[in-house]
Formats: sequence, C-alpha cells, structure tokens
Amino acid sequence: MTRVLGIDPGLRCLGWGVIEQEGSRLRHVANGQILSGVGTLAARLSSLHMQLTAIFAEFRPDEAAIEKTFVNRDGAGTLKLGQARGVAILVPAQAGIEVGEYSPNSVKKCVVGVGHADKRQVDHMVRMQLPGAEPAGPDAADALAIAMCHAFHLQGLRARARA
Amino acid sequence: MTRVLGIDPGLRCLGWGVIEQEGSRLRHVANGQILSGVGTLAARLSSLHMQLTAIFAEFRPDEAAIEKTFVNRDGAGTLKLGQARGVAILVPAQAGIEVGEYSPNSVKKCVVGVGHADKRQVDHMVRMQLPGAEPAGPDAADALAIAMCHAFHLQGLRARARA
Repeated sequence: MTRVLGIDPGLRCLGWGVIEQEGSRLRHVANGQILSGVGTLAARLSSLHMQLTAIFAEFRPDEAAIEKTFVNRDGAGTLKLGQARGVAILVPAQAGIEVGEYSPNSVKKCVVGVGHADKRQVDHMVRMQLPGAEPAGPDAADALAIAMCHAFHLQGLRARARA
Repeated sequence: MTRVLGIDPGLRCLGWGVIEQEGSRLRHVANGQILSGVGTLAARLSSLHMQLTAIFAEFRPDEAAIEKTFVNRDGAGTLKLGQARGVAILVPAQAGIEVGEYSPNSVKKCVVGVGHADKRQVDHMVRMQLPGAEPAGPDAADALAIAMCHAFHLQGLRARARA
C-alpha cells in the first residue's frame, strides 16, 4: 500500500489531497485547502509551510506530487506562484521524499481522459474514482487529481518493472 | 547594535552576507555563496533551506532583506528563481523576522549612488564601505549590498522616529 500526497500550489490558497493505492485500487484519505491569510509575504510563506508540514506529519505519505506550473502568464504571477511552490516542494523534500511533477494537461488527461477538461469535470471524475471523496474546493479537487495521476504513474512503473 | 542578513536569491547559487550596524557605522561579519548542487528540484531546494538555516543559526541576525526579483525575463527562469526565493524568505520568516525587499536598482543606488552600476562597482563599494570584507563572489557581494541597503533604510526609519 502506497500513500500519495498531491499538491496544487498557490500563494493565497494551496490545495492538498491524500490517497492510498493498493494494486490498481485507489482510496480517498483526506483533502483540504490551506489559506496563507493576510500579512507580509514572509508571514504567508511561513504559514503555508507550517500548515503543510502539519498535514504531512498527520498523514505520512510515501510519495508526493505537485502540479507543474504554467509560466506563460504574467511575470509577477509566476513569481508569486514560484515562491509558494518552492515552499510546498520543500515539505516532502525535507522528509527525503522525491516530488513528482505533472502539467495541468497531463493531470486532466490522466483523470478525465482529455487535456482540456474544466474544473467541474475534474471534480466529478475525482468523486467518481475516489468514492467518498468530498473535495473541499477546486484546488483540493485538483490536488486529489494530481495524487491520482502520480498513483497511475507509479502503477505503470511497477508494471514495467515486473514485465 | 543590529545584525542584518542580506540574501541574493538564486536556485543554482544563493549569495548571503551578514553585517552589523551601530548608529551610522557598518561592520562586515561574514558572507558566502550557497550552491544547491546537482539533483532534483526537491533535493536542491531542501539543500538551500538547510544551508541557509545553518547560517541563520550561526549568525542570529535581527533583520533580513532580500533582492526583489526581476520578472521581465523568461517565465521558466522567473519560476526557478521564485522557488528559490520562497525557500530563502522562509528561513528568517520561520524565526519570526520580517524580510525587507529591495529592487536591484535601489540596492545599487543605495550602495554605489547610481541605479545602473555594474557588478565590479558593487563589489568595489562593498569593500570600501565594509572594511575587511572579501566577498566570496558576485552573489555574496550583492547580498552584502542588500544588507547595507536595509541597514541604511533602518537608520532612516530610526532618524525619522526620533524627529
């Protein structure tokens, strides 16, 4: 059994989701959205790190994955997202866990079947494939989708290793 | 006496410098450059965080400042820098210290007198104004310049508070 943490990074709101994989079965464990609140950049990054560290300590994932960030938007937005993403990656890295990276399109393709799916479709397919999952919001649904995508990827790696 | 840590963020190489301010006098304490080495993004960010945390614990600064990042370059570069910058800001933030932010131009104006100074001029003025300082490289020289800029800013705030 492998426990996977998915992270949808953001400075204002960071989505997270934990699932369990056993063979080809996936199970929902928990999900949520972390808010960095108001305050200075330093205080907000510190708050994100503290909250994600607490989640990591509670659910002790074996694997982690994060969304690959769009970089074709405005520079200031990319910088903000980059800062939150750096702090988010740091949490599993500090526990010695590598962090898989998947583009939004490959996550959607993996979970919904098409790369241009909208948020409602992602939410729908996450609920379908993880019975009992009630995503706390769109960022939490994305985080669960990222965790599922990483779980499928691991399953493929294991199948190839056996072959 | 106030101890200021200056940080010039970068994913490959992060410059740092510590100075002491007493009234209008500045004194060099230490400087260096942190390399994140080769490896995954997660491992490199973790390495930056660990090394900067060790420097923070050794020199116990009261104040910290970091270079405001250019965002008008390529998106991938901005994202990389943002990730390293987020991890760098986290270190003083975790100690409850706010982090001043200064644009490259305002740092140069502050230390050299003009906003378009080149790296050699920054290095020269840092050595002039911090006797005994031997910057470990251009990123360390920039970090000392950022610390000086923050020290001048604090001095101005205190002068205004007295007036």
